[in-house]
Amino acid sequence: MCAASSVWGNNLRLSVFGESHGPAVGVVLDGFPWGETVDMDALHLQMRRRAPGQDKTATPRKEADLPQFLSGIQDGFTTGAPICILIENTNTHSGDYSNLKRVPRPGHSDYPAFVKYGGFNDIRGGGHFSARITAGICAAGALCRQVLLRRGVRIAGHVLSIGDRQDACFPETQISPEEMERLASLYFPTLQPSAKTAMEEAIQKARTAGDSIGGVVECAVTGMPAGLGGPLFGGVESLLSAALFAIPAVKGVEFGAGFSVSRMRGSQNNDPFRCTSSGQVVSSTNHAGGILGGITDAMPILFRAAFKPTPSISLPQESVDLLTKENVPLEVRGRHDPCVVPRAVPVVESMAALCMLDLLLSASSLPPSSSEKR
Amino acid sequence: MCAASSVWGNNLRLSVFGESHGPAVGVVLDGFPWGETVDMDALHLQMRRRAPGQDKTATPRKEADLPQFLSGIQDGFTTGAPICILIENTNTHSGDYSNLKRVPRPGHSDYPAFVKYGGFNDIRGGGHFSARITAGICAAGALCRQVLLRRGVRIAGHVLSIGDRQDACFPETQISPEEMERLASLYFPTLQPSAKTAMEEAIQKARTAGDSIGGVVECAVTGMPAGLGGPLFGGVESLLSAALFAIPAVKGVEFGAGFSVSRMRGSQNNDPFRCTSSGQVVSSTNHAGGILGGITDAMPILFRAAFKPTPSISLPQESVDLLTKENVPLEVRGRHDPCVVPRAVPVVESMAALCMLDLLLSASSLPPSSSEKR
Amino acid sequence: MCAASSVWGNNLRLSVFGESHGPAVGVVLDGFPWGETVDMDALHLQMRRRAPGQDKTATPRKEADLPQFLSGIQDGFTTGAPICILIENTNTHSGDYSNLKRVPRPGHSDYPAFVKYGGFNDIRGGGHFSARITAGICAAGALCRQVLLRRGVRIAGHVLSIGDRQDACFPETQISPEEMERLASLYFPTLQPSAKTAMEEAIQKARTAGDSIGGVVECAVTGMPAGLGGPLFGGVESLLSAALFAIPAVKGVEFGAGFSVSRMRGSQNNDPFRCTSSGQVVSSTNHAGGILGGITDAMPILFRAAFKPTPSISLPQESVDLLTKENVPLEVRGRHDPCVVPRAVPVVESMAALCMLDLLLSASSLPPSSSEKR
Amino acid sequence: MCAASSVWGNNLRLSVFGESHGPAVGVVLDGFPWGETVDMDALHLQMRRRAPGQDKTATPRKEADLPQFLSGIQDGFTTGAPICILIENTNTHSGDYSNLKRVPRPGHSDYPAFVKYGGFNDIRGGGHFSARITAGICAAGALCRQVLLRRGVRIAGHVLSIGDRQDACFPETQISPEEMERLASLYFPTLQPSAKTAMEEAIQKARTAGDSIGGVVECAVTGMPAGLGGPLFGGVESLLSAALFAIPAVKGVEFGAGFSVSRMRGSQNNDPFRCTSSGQVVSSTNHAGGILGGITDAMPILFRAAFKPTPSISLPQESVDLLTKENVPLEVRGRHDPCVVPRAVPVVESMAALCMLDLLLSASSLPPSSSEKR
Repeated sequence: MCAASSVWGNNLRLSVFGESHGPAVGVVLDGFPWGETVDMDALHLQMRRRAPGQDKTATPRKEADLPQFLSGIQDGFTTGAPICILIENTNTHSGDYSNLKRVPRPGHSDYPAFVKYGGFNDIRGGGHFSARITAGICAAGALCRQVLLRRGVRIAGHVLSIGDRQDACFPETQISPEEMERLASLYFPTLQPSAKTAMEEAIQKARTAGDSIGGVVECAVTGMPAGLGGPLFGGVESLLSAALFAIPAVKGVEFGAGFSVSRMRGSQNNDPFRCTSSGQVVSSTNHAGGILGGITDAMPILFRAAFKPTPSISLPQESVDLLTKENVPLEVRGRHDPCVVPRAVPVVESMAALCMLDLLLSASSLPPSSSEKR
Repeated sequence: MCAASSVWGNNLRLSVFGESHGPAVGVVLDGFPWGETVDMDALHLQMRRRAPGQDKTATPRKEADLPQFLSGIQDGFTTGAPICILIENTNTHSGDYSNLKRVPRPGHSDYPAFVKYGGFNDIRGGGHFSARITAGICAAGALCRQVLLRRGVRIAGHVLSIGDRQDACFPETQISPEEMERLASLYFPTLQPSAKTAMEEAIQKARTAGDSIGGVVECAVTGMPAGLGGPLFGGVESLLSAALFAIPAVKGVEFGAGFSVSRMRGSQNNDPFRCTSSGQVVSSTNHAGGILGGITDAMPILFRAAFKPTPSISLPQESVDLLTKENVPLEVRGRHDPCVVPRAVPVVESMAALCMLDLLLSASSLPPSSSEKR
Repeated sequence: MCAASSVWGNNLRLSVFGESHGPAVGVVLDGFPWGETVDMDALHLQMRRRAPGQDKTATPRKEADLPQFLSGIQDGFTTGAPICILIENTNTHSGDYSNLKRVPRPGHSDYPAFVKYGGFNDIRGGGHFSARITAGICAAGALCRQVLLRRGVRIAGHVLSIGDRQDACFPETQISPEEMERLASLYFPTLQPSAKTAMEEAIQKARTAGDSIGGVVECAVTGMPAGLGGPLFGGVESLLSAALFAIPAVKGVEFGAGFSVSRMRGSQNNDPFRCTSSGQVVSSTNHAGGILGGITDAMPILFRAAFKPTPSISLPQESVDLLTKENVPLEVRGRHDPCVVPRAVPVVESMAALCMLDLLLSASSLPPSSSEKR
Repeated sequence: MCAASSVWGNNLRLSVFGESHGPAVGVVLDGFPWGETVDMDALHLQMRRRAPGQDKTATPRKEADLPQFLSGIQDGFTTGAPICILIENTNTHSGDYSNLKRVPRPGHSDYPAFVKYGGFNDIRGGGHFSARITAGICAAGALCRQVLLRRGVRIAGHVLSIGDRQDACFPETQISPEEMERLASLYFPTLQPSAKTAMEEAIQKARTAGDSIGGVVECAVTGMPAGLGGPLFGGVESLLSAALFAIPAVKGVEFGAGFSVSRMRGSQNNDPFRCTSSGQVVSSTNHAGGILGGITDAMPILFRAAFKPTPSISLPQESVDLLTKENVPLEVRGRHDPCVVPRAVPVVESMAALCMLDLLLSASSLPPSSSEKR
């Protein structure tokens, strides 16, 4: 048996619960700042960006994923008590999942979860491993984003690639607040409109083939002050990467120039410092992605997360029967999402929002030392 | 002020201390299993792989980095009490570092650390941000490796690339114990001997140019049982990535096929299951890198960490004077390590060893349920 | 602002949410063992022991405090995923609480909570500080008790005193399973029937006077194996006391002979060891309360928690107006519970159950060392 | 096997290591505020209050317990990096301890530690369970006290009782800074000089009888601001009690009126609020011990810890032979400390200092919300 794993955080604490086909998914968010107003429209917008059924339609499913707040908010203000957010599962058709316990789907958690939980885990729709679980995380992230925005911190992501179709990268050193807010309000955001068209085509091809396709989400955080984070295990990269790899399907995370730093010389990679006319220290490039020695340097925080193609495909696959220990063919019927990447953008942003607020809350206000007080 | 950041772990707890030019660096390792013998020769071998001055010489510096054990070991066995490991700093020539507080070095933690600590941080040799700090982590990792090896778990890394010079990748599904142990005993391990030669050449070129160069370390863990880890924040990728990004200079981490999954179809990326003649469930490819849904599946755990070129270079650079807020040129004299990647291999392995032992310890032995006991 | 405080645990993780007059209270319990059956009748019995309105009536309020399980249980078995338990607040008449924000009630959290949360905390019925919050903890504890009972671990408490009315103490070294189960099923359990009558009288007197009265709960845990816990901060006393002081109104906690050890000689206090005929090591007294050096010794774990009289009384009191900074009289109308101690027994037991299961789960099953595996 | 237990803290993190007869004991203190001066004389004074051999002599053993600082301090200022403090064990005469592994001493951790660690624990002088370990905690506490004092927070304890000999209690609502500092500089502090004489007599009697004797330490913290701590598991009582029960020999902890609240009516126990002429909210009594709802209310924080008589006595005792499973007599030779309570006062204060600084650091400085920033 293994220790608890659905609890996250340092100053903020997030506790995640629910299964794909259970009555509800949700989170409890403890340590949230008090006296913050909650903008429900902004929150619902973020929920819609993650909700299913957005593709090729301007009308989001009306009732989809409306979060209920069971605690921690009174008269529109946060109270400082834990915030419980509940999202009911309204659209679950479980059918017969008994076969999945015997014949694990390749690429899914079925097999290792069977070993870990001795077969007792809820396997319907992936159970607690389902990406459905990220709905609650999006709601929590949306709350954090509102607090951050009031402090000038903005978070936005875009789909950098789907298969071999590429969007442009974020500019390294400067991203306008307007562009950040534009992206943060879109379903399937890209920097270049043409990139989105090309990507949709690639997704459509995968769907037609009964297959799925992967991609990369790039995310930026602007407005974070310098001096947050720390050396070693308190570094911003450690904090963010642990949160990002908690998103189902993420297999790679990189910051700033990322893997390409491995092909650089120091003279290329080092970001030269310079002073702005207002006396602010900035760097003229940002290969560091806003993080040096694990600490923010006030440049945009830039990172990328690679998503594998969703393992649910209609094509025939090879698996084993865990009971008879025989190799058996597997064909999984049902509607499959051929690409989770566009819907994953607000999830990536939400993880970033949770981390950024946790970092901001880590800056403590020790009262000033006073010799008179002796 | 920020929360503590030099403490790591769940079942194991590692507490890291020391500065590059202080009297010593070290760690306290709590929660270590008791009754384990400590093989000091094996431990010293791992320390030598990380120690400076290994290049182009078969003779390691005699007195280098010999760890002292201050607690937790008696008569050659671990006792279950915290293990304090101390490594004295014998070779520190501090000189005058006062200028560094005014003019931060590009690519180093100097500037954000100045902001975070109000200028009080020890900047000599990077202080607590120095890679010197990884000596204690290597000693802790070496202890963990011995416990793991007795349970059939092996950890080995190699230099996958330096600049554009590439070694082969680990075979995905099977790595022999002999190859694992060969790599785990070498300084600058590569799978292909020719790769090492090419890489040494690239490093030499960077050194001659007064520059530095980055690279990638690939690491494998074999022998881990299936069923360890968990969904969400308890996933093996979250655990490992947080530890890897704690290593100074790491800017990217990927598991299994990593970023390349973003260019794959599901039908390519999904690893088909099959049963071995002995009834073991394996997969015929291993794009998942041994981790599905955050849980080990008993295939080799494979991951890569990208290291930036060390920011210490002799070439002239641009910086700012934090006092006068003027742009100023910067030239840093002294011996510089043109590439940290070969020495980083045992550090990566040590982080993996800490994580793997933490995971093994997470498997709890709840007594069996017994109706008679009522 | 302060760090999150409604999250508890090591191997188990409990996250508590809700306010007295909000829509619901509840918990998320992560790390719970899988494959455990859930006995809903036994759980409801424990909920009724804590529910209000038990006094002087054999009929519990029928619909009171029926917990809903939103996750983590499927077909009557726990799945290993987090268990979310929700208990709706059906009986909330908030009325006008605005005065309480200005004039804090003595003995309540009103004043310090006002300072901490800048007046944003929900003050209706005490908000998140209400003892109502313990309903979810009781449900979580009831789940843990079932797992423990199947391993021969029993938990039972009784009301040791109300004001100056005393029950007998638990026998130190041996408590029969039957007595444990008798107590653990009662509302207002005492060892001696006459003690309960005397205590009820004292409570009735306090009620008539518009006043309230305090008391002590004594609790025992039998069947825990030796060797759980640890030195320093991992000790069983540290674990249990932190959980017990989390219960509103607890102001003292003691283990075994407790405060009376301070009046003893070592020769009196030391518990002599002896071997039973079956070769088990026991002690002939149990002043240690089953814990030596922070570790269980397999004797009954015995402890006491002192509860203050509930601060809600009808008598006139002195307070201040936080706005005008004037001293003002305060009279609080409404029904008040003159004594929380009887209802607190299952809460104390539940905290113990959470701690005991956390301890049992801490015993890890590191695979045996095997030289052949090399 | 059990989880790590020698690591403590939230914002501060303390990691404790060492054994009674090993080369050294010590701590690593992470998260300590930077830019704080370290007064070594004040620190040495605190170390001497805990050091052995203070009784009946004005001359402390000169070389005793001088802590070495291995990291985290530069030029007399803390740097923000972890502070490693080492205290060498100079006076260890181990002799033959092999018998103790077979015949556990009553009242000591010997037996449960044997079970927990399978006999591998270092039993010489109690190993990691020895009160010797508190030397490092005292050094860490002394550092914290200096930071606190500069913010007007004072911590002082006194011996409230030894056996049946009593000192006066702290006044509830007001303790002068001078009295706090007087007590905090004394070995064996009492409020009344006559109490100390009576207590010394009691200790002398126990010593002559080859026996030992217990007692109670009372401690006060003045100057803490209101609003620190939180509900449930974040309460100040939970934090402090977990730290206090980590001190070997503590079997009871109470706050404010403590166990006596159980005998009170609410009208007696509730502390009436009033406003001072300067507009400060205070209470005219302080049965709450400065903590309401787990949160500080700016009144003195008052608590008591009961210490059992040290289990090391010269009188013959009864034990068992763990090998032969026979009852055997036990006589333990050697010098024994007949009462640890006077030396425990600075340890109690140190635990309080760690907790108070952790609480002060928990008050975060989230930047103000700013609509313009949008």
